[in-house]
Amino acid sequence: MLSKKEIKYIQSLALKKHRDDTGLFVAEGPKIVHELAQHFPAYIQMLYAVKEWVKENAGLIDASKIREVSEDELERLSQLHTPNKVIVVLKKFHVDKPVRPSFLLYLDEIQDPGNFGTIIRIADWFGVHHVICSQGCADLYNPKVVQSTMASIARVQVHYDDDEQWLLKQQLPVYAATLNGKPVYGHAKIKEGILLIGNESKGLRKELVEKATEELTIPRLGSAESLNAAVATGIILSHLLAN
Amino acid sequence: MLSKKEIKYIQSLALKKHRDDTGLFVAEGPKIVHELAQHFPAYIQMLYAVKEWVKENAGLIDASKIREVSEDELERLSQLHTPNKVIVVLKKFHVDKPVRPSFLLYLDEIQDPGNFGTIIRIADWFGVHHVICSQGCADLYNPKVVQSTMASIARVQVHYDDDEQWLLKQQLPVYAATLNGKPVYGHAKIKEGILLIGNESKGLRKELVEKATEELTIPRLGSAESLNAAVATGIILSHLLAN
Repeated sequence: MLSKKEIKYIQSLALKKHRDDTGLFVAEGPKIVHELAQHFPAYIQMLYAVKEWVKENAGLIDASKIREVSEDELERLSQLHTPNKVIVVLKKFHVDKPVRPSFLLYLDEIQDPGNFGTIIRIADWFGVHHVICSQGCADLYNPKVVQSTMASIARVQVHYDDDEQWLLKQQLPVYAATLNGKPVYGHAKIKEGILLIGNESKGLRKELVEKATEELTIPRLGSAESLNAAVATGIILSHLLAN
Repeated sequence: MLSKKEIKYIQSLALKKHRDDTGLFVAEGPKIVHELAQHFPAYIQMLYAVKEWVKENAGLIDASKIREVSEDELERLSQLHTPNKVIVVLKKFHVDKPVRPSFLLYLDEIQDPGNFGTIIRIADWFGVHHVICSQGCADLYNPKVVQSTMASIARVQVHYDDDEQWLLKQQLPVYAATLNGKPVYGHAKIKEGILLIGNESKGLRKELVEKATEELTIPRLGSAESLNAAVATGIILSHLLAN
């Protein structure tokens, strides 16, 4: 049985303050836990799972790191409406800046956790391995971000960095997603570059747009004022990387 | 001042049961209220707004339909974390099936309210005027759907219909979004057709895929198992309608 103290401590990781203090975060559900166990076994601090999961996943991680819990206990630990068999507590990843990357996605103040997680999942779909975020972005370890990545958090390296000088030193073409650029349709497929995606309502900061090699736009055929930032990222990546 | 009864009644519209019983729903915030007042003035039953909004929007709708409320009252009426000046109660729209449409988006059991609302916004961006939904889709009038459309709910006509025979009688080419189809990149621009988008985890029902003229896929360059349904819809529409 879990102690009240242990339950409280895991619940507390829903808050950024406690994640920052402890250097830990939480991920839930069989799919994401499986991916994390494969890619980051050393980062797993403790795993809490119901009997059924424990039985089916023998050998996935070191048994000393597994605590079997009741459905009731799982429910108390979980941040989800419908708890899903397993919860893992991990150390935050240590991720170095990429060395001579060929393609980078740069996010400028993407604040909605769902959008942020979905963008990481999109990056993973399109084979983008590095996402650089301004400090104004949502916290990667926010439970909503973690869950929205649908396990892509285990495959895409996310760096927080406000050092835009570093970005520009990569000597890669810089593409800025704006509302008044060149249509992204028909753009030649690119092999390298940095795609800049801006905040949901304010767009990209002017000083970033000014540094772009090219501004790209998804032409509007109808009347909506804007597209969701994750949807726009998906559309632009699909036209640049895979057309 | 609003009576307790009136406050309770408006709050109750957050639940489908009460929306079904009354035929009413709620939308919030200046942007969406402005669009609804322009497109559907006759559907507005009552509007509740703080003094500032009332002053700035004189003449937008019939004054007899405006109730000025305090910030406290607005907060009690609102479903949002941060209430935003104005809340409107409307009659659900009466929408006929389109007659000889040139392009339709068909949604098969899109259940997540955020995805559903985002797809309506995407349709609006790409000039798609008609969305047909299976009965298994989320409720269009769910507050999360309404807000996720970002006012596009006023411009896109959404029909619930399980009559797939009707779909096929339109004699339009049918494109099914699946994981094993022809790459959507490089597809010729289309002028007419029906795009079928399936459930977030189960995809499209087999009987629908069988009726498709063509299966289309967004090729995966990386490792994510799937793309978010709204993101996939945006990418496919961008390649079919606007490339």
